[in-house]
Amino acid sequence: MSQKRNGGVRVGVVGATGAVGEVLLDVLTQRDFPVAELRPLASERSAGTTVAFGGRAIEVAEATPDSFAGLDVVFFAATGALSKTLAPEVVKAGAIAIDKSSTWRMDPNVPLVVPEVNPDAALAHRGIIACPNCTTIGAVMALEPIHRAAGLESVVITTLQAVSGAGKPGIDELEEQLRALGTGTAPEPRVFDAPIANNVVPKCDGFGDDGFTAEEAKLLHETRKIMGLPELAVSVTCVRVPVPVGHSASMLLGTKRAIAPAEARRALEAFPGVEVVDDLQAQLFPTPRDVAGRDEVLVGRIRKDATSDRLWLWQTSDNLRKGAATNAIQIAELLIERGALPRR
Amino acid sequence: MSQKRNGGVRVGVVGATGAVGEVLLDVLTQRDFPVAELRPLASERSAGTTVAFGGRAIEVAEATPDSFAGLDVVFFAATGALSKTLAPEVVKAGAIAIDKSSTWRMDPNVPLVVPEVNPDAALAHRGIIACPNCTTIGAVMALEPIHRAAGLESVVITTLQAVSGAGKPGIDELEEQLRALGTGTAPEPRVFDAPIANNVVPKCDGFGDDGFTAEEAKLLHETRKIMGLPELAVSVTCVRVPVPVGHSASMLLGTKRAIAPAEARRALEAFPGVEVVDDLQAQLFPTPRDVAGRDEVLVGRIRKDATSDRLWLWQTSDNLRKGAATNAIQIAELLIERGALPRR
Repeated sequence: MSQKRNGGVRVGVVGATGAVGEVLLDVLTQRDFPVAELRPLASERSAGTTVAFGGRAIEVAEATPDSFAGLDVVFFAATGALSKTLAPEVVKAGAIAIDKSSTWRMDPNVPLVVPEVNPDAALAHRGIIACPNCTTIGAVMALEPIHRAAGLESVVITTLQAVSGAGKPGIDELEEQLRALGTGTAPEPRVFDAPIANNVVPKCDGFGDDGFTAEEAKLLHETRKIMGLPELAVSVTCVRVPVPVGHSASMLLGTKRAIAPAEARRALEAFPGVEVVDDLQAQLFPTPRDVAGRDEVLVGRIRKDATSDRLWLWQTSDNLRKGAATNAIQIAELLIERGALPRR
Repeated sequence: MSQKRNGGVRVGVVGATGAVGEVLLDVLTQRDFPVAELRPLASERSAGTTVAFGGRAIEVAEATPDSFAGLDVVFFAATGALSKTLAPEVVKAGAIAIDKSSTWRMDPNVPLVVPEVNPDAALAHRGIIACPNCTTIGAVMALEPIHRAAGLESVVITTLQAVSGAGKPGIDELEEQLRALGTGTAPEPRVFDAPIANNVVPKCDGFGDDGFTAEEAKLLHETRKIMGLPELAVSVTCVRVPVPVGHSASMLLGTKRAIAPAEARRALEAFPGVEVVDDLQAQLFPTPRDVAGRDEVLVGRIRKDATSDRLWLWQTSDNLRKGAATNAIQIAELLIERGALPRR
């Protein structure tokens, strides 16, 4: 209704002061998202602070079950606990919740959406739409074009993940430890399980009984759900690296039909949101520094495996943008495009 | 002869002032290698400087074809160009050349040796013994115990390699770029093809026409030669990470017979030079910081793949020690043990 009245969408952002929340406000502006009203919300701790949006400082309110009246869409860029309690309240208030936490992702009643990959799934929502984990989004953006071209059967992935995947505390920890190295002090791990400056840590999130981390399990199960391939063999190790922003993944793809690197490159180049950065002569390949602040998923090192018919790829994306904020906003844009926002 | 006379070995070190050369001198002392004479050699540029050994400062001479008279063994820790010219001169002088460069590794007349894996190969030398690349040594140390237990058929490897793999210039470049970040200056890449501070670079060494780097080709061909498995499927991507010392590798192993993680752990624990660091409850896993300055190859994250019968491992080793200096010295120790040094 308000969208018709003033040509815009009334937007709530839960977790507006976090690492993803801040980028989300930037991306709303940069993508010219039709915002009629912006209501920044956060946990009690951050309520009362302000965020900058549209040239104004807007006070952040505490996110409570009563926070959502009159909104059309609410982005959750906060902890899973807040999403679990409050996303159903958003639905009761008649708005759509687009959730970046892991809370609802594997719920069979909740679509898990990357707009370039499975846009139609979004339209079947019952009020909540889940955004995949940052590592999953980068991976499926590179896998889907190859799947459409040659049928994906398996993928072996090792990720190299930025510290901002653990939010602002992760960024702060790397900066503090780098400063400590400069003064000869021993770095003290808090957010990560081992020092991250001048180091790599082969563990993202907690261990399960099978020896896999929660992050690794997400990449397996979310990829299968988004791509609609419940049997897809996804073999994965996730590693934290001392990079502020930009998740990378080294990926070996097995396909039904062998696909030549030149054909793979064409499929990737034609896929929206993917940019191929791959030139042996010019020494071009994607790195996290190249992708930080960008919405595209960069793919390079495209080559046939030396000892099998499989295909190697190297993929890098901004975990705070396409891996989080941008993907969430693209879901809302998709709903607008299909006339599905607002629901009322 | 000199060994009998004074109970020691007359040792030459070509490249004594480089990153590996310095560590080699340390490791000779730490392992109590029976040094009767130490003759540090280097390119013209470093000749005239001194190195510390056995509590003395020893002047570095220029390495020339006439440098090797009276020596029993000469370690090459320098560029491939020096090894190519001078290793045959070592042989002519009646000494044994143990070469860390890539020059002789794939020569069918030159054994390529990791003493724990293929010690007998060393004894068939014709004067030159090659030391594998640093990434290869860590990999085969973890692969061999699994191969002996269950028969290795394939391995998919993504490496995360320290900057010291590119010698002192690599270490300096990371340090300079980290300092530059602190002052807000843009890092300038020279040694690596992209900034390495706060970044990862999916390219180690130059590209070949097939899209693989020389580093990746080495890992494939050297692993096959050392393990005596000419058909082994080795699928590999090598990545440079902002870590001073310590190469890591994420490895997925396919075996003839499926091997349970518990059996794999026992095989790894029983293998000399390997230490298992793997405890989910205690959050224990190996990182480069844990292994820097140590001779053991650390292995952790041992688990069955979630979607196949393959086995995941994470492996870390000090690329300057077991990946270079220690392995070279172990080859000399092996020759002494088997009565094969000196040859005269």
